[in-house]
This record gives sequence, C-alpha cells and structure tokens, in this order.
Amino acid sequence: MSKLPFEKICILGPGLLGGSIAMAVHQHMPECELRIWARRQQPLDFVRECGITEHTYTDAREAARGADLIILATPIGAFEELSRYILSAVAKEAIITDIGSVKAYVHRTTGAMLTSRGRCFIGSHPMAGAETPGIENAFADLIKGATVALTNPHGAPEAKLQQLAAFWEALGTSTYVMDPANHDRTVARISHCPHILAALCARGATLGQEPMEDLQRLAASGFRDTTRVCSGGANMWADILWENDVAVRSALHDCVNDLHHLIDLLETQDKEGVRQWLIAAKNARETIREIDN
Amino acid sequence: MSKLPFEKICILGPGLLGGSIAMAVHQHMPECELRIWARRQQPLDFVRECGITEHTYTDAREAARGADLIILATPIGAFEELSRYILSAVAKEAIITDIGSVKAYVHRTTGAMLTSRGRCFIGSHPMAGAETPGIENAFADLIKGATVALTNPHGAPEAKLQQLAAFWEALGTSTYVMDPANHDRTVARISHCPHILAALCARGATLGQEPMEDLQRLAASGFRDTTRVCSGGANMWADILWENDVAVRSALHDCVNDLHHLIDLLETQDKEGVRQWLIAAKNARETIREIDN
Repeated sequence: MSKLPFEKICILGPGLLGGSIAMAVHQHMPECELRIWARRQQPLDFVRECGITEHTYTDAREAARGADLIILATPIGAFEELSRYILSAVAKEAIITDIGSVKAYVHRTTGAMLTSRGRCFIGSHPMAGAETPGIENAFADLIKGATVALTNPHGAPEAKLQQLAAFWEALGTSTYVMDPANHDRTVARISHCPHILAALCARGATLGQEPMEDLQRLAASGFRDTTRVCSGGANMWADILWENDVAVRSALHDCVNDLHHLIDLLETQDKEGVRQWLIAAKNARETIREIDN
Repeated sequence: MSKLPFEKICILGPGLLGGSIAMAVHQHMPECELRIWARRQQPLDFVRECGITEHTYTDAREAARGADLIILATPIGAFEELSRYILSAVAKEAIITDIGSVKAYVHRTTGAMLTSRGRCFIGSHPMAGAETPGIENAFADLIKGATVALTNPHGAPEAKLQQLAAFWEALGTSTYVMDPANHDRTVARISHCPHILAALCARGATLGQEPMEDLQRLAASGFRDTTRVCSGGANMWADILWENDVAVRSALHDCVNDLHHLIDLLETQDKEGVRQWLIAAKNARETIREIDN
C-alpha cells in the first residue's frame, strides 16, 4: 500500500475479535501506532508480551486522544457509556466504529449520541468469530477473508466511509455496505438463528429419557459440528439476541412453522415430501455458500 | 494381532461408509480375503483401481458364498431383498451384519427373516459419516476412533458377538452393545434430530425476505458448520427419518416446545432466562462430548 488509511488506531476493550484485529493491524500495518485499552491489566500484559504493541492504556480517554480511528470492541451494552467517557478526547476528524453483531441498536444509541456531538460514527461488523473467547485465543487470520458489513445511517461523508473500507480491506477482508435494519434481519437469519438452532440441538439431545452415557458414546462429528457455535460465550450471545430481538423472533417463528411442516410430512407418511424438504435445505445451503466455492 | 477375527469378509453395496470400511479392512487385515459386490460396475472398477481388492462381484450370492462375515452396506430399504437373494449361499456359521443407521426396523425385517432361517444376524452401526457420498469419497480413517453400536436382540451366541466386536475393534473403533429401540431413540437425539436442525438452519435463512446476496455476503464459518451435515444425501436421510419416524418425531416435538420456551423468554424480556437457556446448551454439549476431551 502506498499510504496507510490511518496512522493512530485505538482499539477499546479487545476480546477474541478485537484482539484478532489488533494482531492483524500489527501484521499488515506495522507503521501504525496501535493503542489498546482494556479495563483489566491482564489483556494488556498479554498484548505487550505478544509484541503486538507497547501502547497500552488503563484509561480509555488517554488511549483515544489523538487517534484517527477508534474501534469499540467491548460488549455492545458498554459502547454508549464508554463513548461518552472518551468523547472530549475524540478528534472531530477521527472515525469511530465498532465491531458489534447488531447495528440498529448501536446506531440508535451510541451512533446517534456521537453524531449529535459532531463526531463521525460508522458501524462495522466483521463476520468472523469462534467459540473460544478472549484475547488469549485471538489470531491475526481470524478475520482473513471475512466480509465486514459497514453501516452508515448517520450519513458520514463518502470519503470517510471509503477510508474505513480501505482499512478493513487492507486487513484481508472484503466490505459490504448495508442498511442497519437490513443487516440485523440478515444476521438474524444467517448467524443468530443458527446459533440458537445449534444450542437447541445440544439441549434437544438431553430432553429425552436417553441415558447420558448412550448419548456420549454415539455422539460423532455431525453432532460436534452442528452444535459447535453454542459453546460460545452465553453472556455475549444473550446480549446479541436481546439487542436483535424482533428480527430473531421473526426468524424463530419461521423455524417453528417449518419444523411443524416437517413433523406433518412424517406423520402423514409423505416420504417424497420429506425428501423434498431435505433437498430444499441442501440447495439453500449451497446457494448461500456459493461465494465460498 | 495373533489371529484375524474373520478370513473371508464380504461387503455388499459399498458407498461412503461401506467403502471406507473396505479400505480399513485392506489396511488393517491385509491377509483377509475381501470381497465386494455392487449393483453397478463403476464402484467395482474403483475398488480394483485403488488396489483394495481383486475380488469384485456383480452377483451378490457369489460374493457371499463361503464368507465368514457378510456386511450389508446398501441403503437400508434393500437389506431384506438382498438377504433373501444371498440366503442359500450364506454358511450357517457365518455372521451377517449391517451398517444401517436405524436398528429396530432392520431387526424386525432382515434380522428376523435371517434368524428364522437359522442364520446369525447381529446389527452394527458405526457412528461415522460425511456429507460427501459414494465410494469415491471413502477413506480408511473415516471410521477411526468411532463408536460402533452393536445390537443383538435375536440372541446370537456371546462368542459370535465377541467375534464381531473384535473385527470392529481391529479397525480402530470401539464397540458398544445396545438394545435396538434404545439405539434408535439415542440416534434420533444425537444424529437424526441434529441433521434436521442443520437442514432447518439452512432453510430458515431463506424463509425471510432478505435478498440472497445479503445472506451470501454475511454467511461465515458458524453457518457453514451448523449446516454442514445437511449437504448429505437427501435420499438416504429421507429413508433414515422414515425408518426411525417415532423416535425422530418425539425428539422434534421436544425441540418445538423448547423453541417456544426461548421465544417466550425473549417476548417477556427475561434476559437472565435467555442466558440460562444458552448456558444449559453449552453445558449439555460439553457433557455429551466429554469422552472426546
């Protein structure tokens, strides 16, 4: 790259995803001044020991002062208070973004507040994650090849949006601009509902009368993969479902109806109907994953 | 091993799983005479080209003649007719087994018929598979480390059961003797219901109004893994759900109720309840997979 999109990047509250972004910045933009704030000392020690950056802070305002990109990476529920706290130190020309899994809620709260104070807020959602939480499990390649959804309902200037997109793309991702409500409905279908069905799968295994040892003995790779994501942090996921509650419930109602439909097909011995139900699932998966193939 | 459990092993109708077993036999028991029958010539050509065995047959009866272990590896629905066809060539001291995913149905039909004709039938179910069908995708390690459920409701002698268990264990699996009805209820929970939920997840993504491109762009590794198994053959899975219909419907009714419970928690804004629902899922998964850890 001829010129870096940003010179001073500040990541606030890095966990698995924020930590992985920090590592990717360290790897792809070694000339950047990378600043990291965390509430606790332990992740900051980890950051220094790994050689990601020397610029660690226990005061978020000091971390943000003079940065030209500030990334909110705490749990979503903490964004607004944190943003108010750092506000006086945020330069007018800086971009503030976040990496939260829901966007309408973030723009309605944090984004609206920052915009009304004359700051530039654009939402980001890197579609990457793993069930192992914390910066200890972070790695630079977690976001490699991921799509980063960008949401700009407050109408930040196109040049700012391009600057933020250039940052994400320099880290090996591709970007995709969306309306926040549309983003939230889409992730309800492609991420939040899958998380719930993975959890339902694990719960459902134990809802019958089958002895635990039998379940343990017969569980194989299908069960392992179908349920993998539900090992992710329950606190974070309760927040996500909460903040995307309307779209999630709509997706779940569709799933309940579709499950009733399958049960009916089995009850009425419509074997061809069952086969078609399964074929449609296979086709849906293949169409959705076409981009990867 | 001092002595092979069997000297002449016959696999009838190998696909992904039967083909993988054939490769494992070739690898772990090279002294065995391995015989393979298929309805079509193509898989037999593949078997010969791969050097798995020279003993390929287009007549199942000839393949079975003189074998001391016969493994039914066709779709379950074909077991009974195939067994009747080979019956006159099956030695009284031979063991016939199968690798079908449901067991009560197999014993009620094929097992009962063979037993009434004085033959020894014991059910097997290796808990291994993949979404890529056919012997072209087979590999010896597919069954490595898997549990093989053994079902013996017709009361074959303990020595025969031990002989069959020794065969499976020599291929790197562990065996677990179960009652067929109990097996079927357990796989409904740990394999069949997960397959349905994976399919539901893929279908559910497309049941809303979200444009396909948005879904494609935002689909990530969580969607990929949660839905992986539903890429498996719809014909085979329609058969499996069919043949285990009562236990599958019971598991699905529990899932519908549990999903209603979660929707209620979201509707009544019981955030702690949602968190506990997710924690219980995570705990269930970890307990079930304890043996692997």
